[in-house]
Amino acid sequence: MEKVRNTCLKYLTDILIKSYEEHAEIIKVDSIHLLNRQRIVDMLETLRHLVFPGYFGKKNISLLSVEYHAGDMLEEVQHALSKETVRALHYSPHYSGLGKEILEEKAADITFHFLARLPLVREYLAQDVSATFDGDPAAANLDEIIVSYPGIYAIMVYRLAHILYDLEVPLIPRIMTEYAHNITGIDIHPGAVIGHHFFIDHGTGIVIGETTVIGNHVKIYQGVTLGGLSTRGGQTLKGAKRHPTIEDHVTIYSGASILGGNTVIGEGVVIGSNAFVTKSVPEKTRVSIKNPELQFKSDEHAPPTHTELRQDEFWDWVI
Amino acid sequence: MEKVRNTCLKYLTDILIKSYEEHAEIIKVDSIHLLNRQRIVDMLETLRHLVFPGYFGKKNISLLSVEYHAGDMLEEVQHALSKETVRALHYSPHYSGLGKEILEEKAADITFHFLARLPLVREYLAQDVSATFDGDPAAANLDEIIVSYPGIYAIMVYRLAHILYDLEVPLIPRIMTEYAHNITGIDIHPGAVIGHHFFIDHGTGIVIGETTVIGNHVKIYQGVTLGGLSTRGGQTLKGAKRHPTIEDHVTIYSGASILGGNTVIGEGVVIGSNAFVTKSVPEKTRVSIKNPELQFKSDEHAPPTHTELRQDEFWDWVI
Amino acid sequence: MEKVRNTCLKYLTDILIKSYEEHAEIIKVDSIHLLNRQRIVDMLETLRHLVFPGYFGKKNISLLSVEYHAGDMLEEVQHALSKETVRALHYSPHYSGLGKEILEEKAADITFHFLARLPLVREYLAQDVSATFDGDPAAANLDEIIVSYPGIYAIMVYRLAHILYDLEVPLIPRIMTEYAHNITGIDIHPGAVIGHHFFIDHGTGIVIGETTVIGNHVKIYQGVTLGGLSTRGGQTLKGAKRHPTIEDHVTIYSGASILGGNTVIGEGVVIGSNAFVTKSVPEKTRVSIKNPELQFKSDEHAPPTHTELRQDEFWDWVI
Repeated sequence: MEKVRNTCLKYLTDILIKSYEEHAEIIKVDSIHLLNRQRIVDMLETLRHLVFPGYFGKKNISLLSVEYHAGDMLEEVQHALSKETVRALHYSPHYSGLGKEILEEKAADITFHFLARLPLVREYLAQDVSATFDGDPAAANLDEIIVSYPGIYAIMVYRLAHILYDLEVPLIPRIMTEYAHNITGIDIHPGAVIGHHFFIDHGTGIVIGETTVIGNHVKIYQGVTLGGLSTRGGQTLKGAKRHPTIEDHVTIYSGASILGGNTVIGEGVVIGSNAFVTKSVPEKTRVSIKNPELQFKSDEHAPPTHTELRQDEFWDWVI
Repeated sequence: MEKVRNTCLKYLTDILIKSYEEHAEIIKVDSIHLLNRQRIVDMLETLRHLVFPGYFGKKNISLLSVEYHAGDMLEEVQHALSKETVRALHYSPHYSGLGKEILEEKAADITFHFLARLPLVREYLAQDVSATFDGDPAAANLDEIIVSYPGIYAIMVYRLAHILYDLEVPLIPRIMTEYAHNITGIDIHPGAVIGHHFFIDHGTGIVIGETTVIGNHVKIYQGVTLGGLSTRGGQTLKGAKRHPTIEDHVTIYSGASILGGNTVIGEGVVIGSNAFVTKSVPEKTRVSIKNPELQFKSDEHAPPTHTELRQDEFWDWVI
Repeated sequence: MEKVRNTCLKYLTDILIKSYEEHAEIIKVDSIHLLNRQRIVDMLETLRHLVFPGYFGKKNISLLSVEYHAGDMLEEVQHALSKETVRALHYSPHYSGLGKEILEEKAADITFHFLARLPLVREYLAQDVSATFDGDPAAANLDEIIVSYPGIYAIMVYRLAHILYDLEVPLIPRIMTEYAHNITGIDIHPGAVIGHHFFIDHGTGIVIGETTVIGNHVKIYQGVTLGGLSTRGGQTLKGAKRHPTIEDHVTIYSGASILGGNTVIGEGVVIGSNAFVTKSVPEKTRVSIKNPELQFKSDEHAPPTHTELRQDEFWDWVI
């Protein structure tokens, strides 16, 4: 029995190795630039401690020790981010063929610029938290928002990832925002440009595309898509402005779609739930869909349940 | 090089500490009431073992040892919940300024009342699992529902969190339901009131607001919003009934929105997919949208793909 | 105080144990076929290493060591999957009453057939990754897709789970796909049949039902439902073809619903955003909704904010 199992294992290993050879485009061996996804995720956790100090630790931080803690964590991020950035730069055409030392220097440089922008990230996040409190009657206090709101988590990760995107680091920004997408259901591409006082409520299903531009004091609800008109062009569309521009003080209610690179939503506009907008809207306009007419059928008799009805009969009843 | 790096770190730490001073509203130092989010999440896991004993452990539980296990886990939750509740009560205006001992007594009291309601939670959950089985032809058996259905997980966490909300514990209930929101994409505010035999299918994108009231035997599908009409009022709306009332035996299909604090959906109503309802509906009515007319264009010629078309041309083709 | 607490604990344990007796349908004690959900989730992680070797480890894999690593991990999965399969088979009516040895043999057999199909899974996934790259202008390279795209993760888990579903293993396939649903917000039932070059973009909110059939080169966007017309029949519908058939080269844009077991979407069809389709569509047709008319209201005066307006007044303003 043991022998049979070993023979099987040998066979299974052989056919799998053969498949590695056949589809070598989806294996990663002998690679010196393998990114460590888990290290990037861990780094996000440390960065959360740095931007919201004291909220996520297991122990209280004293005012006296906060500097010591911060220095410690900054060093940790500096180390991890430099290392991953060296690997990531191999994906960039600008750096192909350059030596190890030049890449390390470049990565150290990028890491420094990233960390130097953390105070700015904190300034934006303080405004995002404040906008969230002002906008949501269910929010009891700022702490509740910081420790539990998925919108704030997604915005924080986006703001960090966007700096790296700006510094032209490949892969790492997307790994960060897709991790936040996993956690929150909110999909913000790191390439989007988003102003201050940004408020996301509920959030599940939101998609914000790579070339979206969003102004200040914008509110967005669950299920909103800021997307492209068509992706039929695939890779030929790379680099084009495919996603809309949203100006200051715009509110977009749940389920609305705003599509297209030439679509500009003017200042102060309110877009109603489920609206489907593919053209620009002038400032200070309220846009809503003429809601599809509702049909009402009274049904005084008990519905047919738990019997072997055909599906179309069920549906007749439901409609 | 080492020295340069240390100088950089010193600079980075300094500007970050300065930002802590400038935006002190989003730091939490010298706080005696820092909640431990991870402990609350771990507690949810223990509570899952308590309400569904035997399903989630690594070892089988015998009938003889179940009492011992339950006692052990109850003590664990009692300890953790009392501790976190003391911290949470600091956020409540009712308890500000009270001494440590009074708060500890109050927290012990709340914890006792919470744990004493676990049998009731189990009774509701047994009915929710049964309703899920009856409603979903894809469900093979009760165990599949308990170990894998996101709807049951979200409902369990909501039922536990709602008890704490009822006992006026700040923050902890919301941390619990937002954790379930992360896991399942189902966003149920702990303040909602939900009857027995509640069935959620698929679930991603569901939002159930704070002042929603839901009767018994209600079924809800993915993407349904039970929300407020407008949040423009922000914090001025706190405490108002902003979300709808759903009576017994109502079914709400995917993507429907039911909005407003005065909206009452009567007994036995069926709301069709994507309906947008802002007014009350009398009992035993089937509501559906007159679906937006579909347009069909035949296209016998191959579509233009992978060429450098302008975006509006793509869209012309798609429409 | 200590004594009071112990008395309380005794009381709490007693009422909980009583509830275990009253609702014994949701406890699992003295069970020899308790599945270990965590082990199944860990196994998925190992399988991800096997199908995408080198991408998710902490260390680089050399071409020399890849065979050794693969053999090691295959043995690990073989061990874990056989063990869980024995337990799962107890849920199948075909195997009830059979002896331990026969079940173990059957489980070993199933495990072998599962592992023997890993090369095929890799072939499909290589095509899925390629289709994703071709379809998404935001994709920088194949590695970005493999390490960060939720669509690829959900498809990978579905392809693995579908083999076990085909081999008639109860529970395990559903635990796998519901885990991916947790992570990605994409809900693919393991029973669905899906061809090669499958591309999911963004993905949150997608639902693909148990009896769905999807051809090759199909693209699906966020929020798409491939579902049943009505679930009013509940368990009486088990086994029926309740979900649609999607033929080759079909594109379905965000938010569209395609419902019903007799609904066939013909080759090359494009379904526009938010379309609601319950009838078959002939090949090479573009379907779109006549979008609900948009209403525009200019608003030169500042909106009423932060005042105690009644809700209907807010809404008046918003509409």
